[in-house]
Amino acid sequence: MKDGFIPLAAPVARLIEELSKLPGIGPKTAARLTYYLLRRPAPEATALAEAVLALKEKTILCSACQNIAEADPCPICASPERDRATLCVVEEPLDILALERTRKYRGLYHVLHGAISPLEGVGPEQLRIRELLSRLQGGQVKEVILATNPNLEGEATAMYLQRLLVPLGLRVTRLARGLPVGGDLEYADEVTLTRALEGRQEF
Amino acid sequence: MKDGFIPLAAPVARLIEELSKLPGIGPKTAARLTYYLLRRPAPEATALAEAVLALKEKTILCSACQNIAEADPCPICASPERDRATLCVVEEPLDILALERTRKYRGLYHVLHGAISPLEGVGPEQLRIRELLSRLQGGQVKEVILATNPNLEGEATAMYLQRLLVPLGLRVTRLARGLPVGGDLEYADEVTLTRALEGRQEF
Repeated sequence: MKDGFIPLAAPVARLIEELSKLPGIGPKTAARLTYYLLRRPAPEATALAEAVLALKEKTILCSACQNIAEADPCPICASPERDRATLCVVEEPLDILALERTRKYRGLYHVLHGAISPLEGVGPEQLRIRELLSRLQGGQVKEVILATNPNLEGEATAMYLQRLLVPLGLRVTRLARGLPVGGDLEYADEVTLTRALEGRQEF
Repeated sequence: MKDGFIPLAAPVARLIEELSKLPGIGPKTAARLTYYLLRRPAPEATALAEAVLALKEKTILCSACQNIAEADPCPICASPERDRATLCVVEEPLDILALERTRKYRGLYHVLHGAISPLEGVGPEQLRIRELLSRLQGGQVKEVILATNPNLEGEATAMYLQRLLVPLGLRVTRLARGLPVGGDLEYADEVTLTRALEGRQEF
């Protein structure tokens, strides 16, 4: 797209470039989205632009759980209906969404905003661990569920937190590993299958 | 996402909704993009929002070729180096980009902004055909290359234009159909292979 030979209108080239910066969007998809917006009525593009601006201008981090919110504390932390003895630690705000969709968890959350990853230069000090520890000092929390991702970085983070939290006398748990519901045993990888065997339960 | 149960900050929900309207972007991708933007520094989101706004505010249609441009006439129509006797008719501005990338075409363009599609309620009157005909009245154009897409709608549009243009005494041509370069004969569909056979050329 950066070919001077191609007379692309500057605003078109600029949006293609901006969209290409988003994860999973290459130059071809960016061009398609740009020309799609060009064909749509102006208010539609304006609505998108304003939504992008509002995202940064009108959101804050909840000072308790560190989740993205409009108010501090966020609705979950403020809710009298949530169980304040249980804290679920997740990597990203999207993970809260996934857990809330189950409608089975009624405790509070804590968002780390990442996972320990030496390769990407992310150490414990870059995560919201200090905030987690200060929350736990209140003594209200009895169980911490480590719900980091079941991958290398998530496991390393869970391990790190476990070592930090067990000495505090807290119950520290981890989400169960096993076969995904609706999955096929035949296609399960060895590690998942091993975990499913280890974690097998009585009927 | 439209679940009242899930306490999603309104600006977050709003951007997810706006992004979901884009073609090829479902609610999950929209959520991923939204949280990606949340993690990025504010100027990056602002740059994206401004690029979306500028797209509509700072572009016009070239009154000659109907392509998206910043100036009227657009750089191609204004260029003294382009061959004014040849006009290539395309469906969308992106098609011009593809043709310019070949660096082999030196004529002018005309963008129809769509193709005839009875199923989608697009008739010839919705396309920029009137503008095409008034351009051809000047008598400068000797050849019209119909470069609509090689699909049902594109073929119907080309057929329609051909009937309209041949009586005007113009040379009307169509892009060659055949095997895509780098493709594999084994995987070519019958229609393409038939066209490749019909259009075979001497070594």
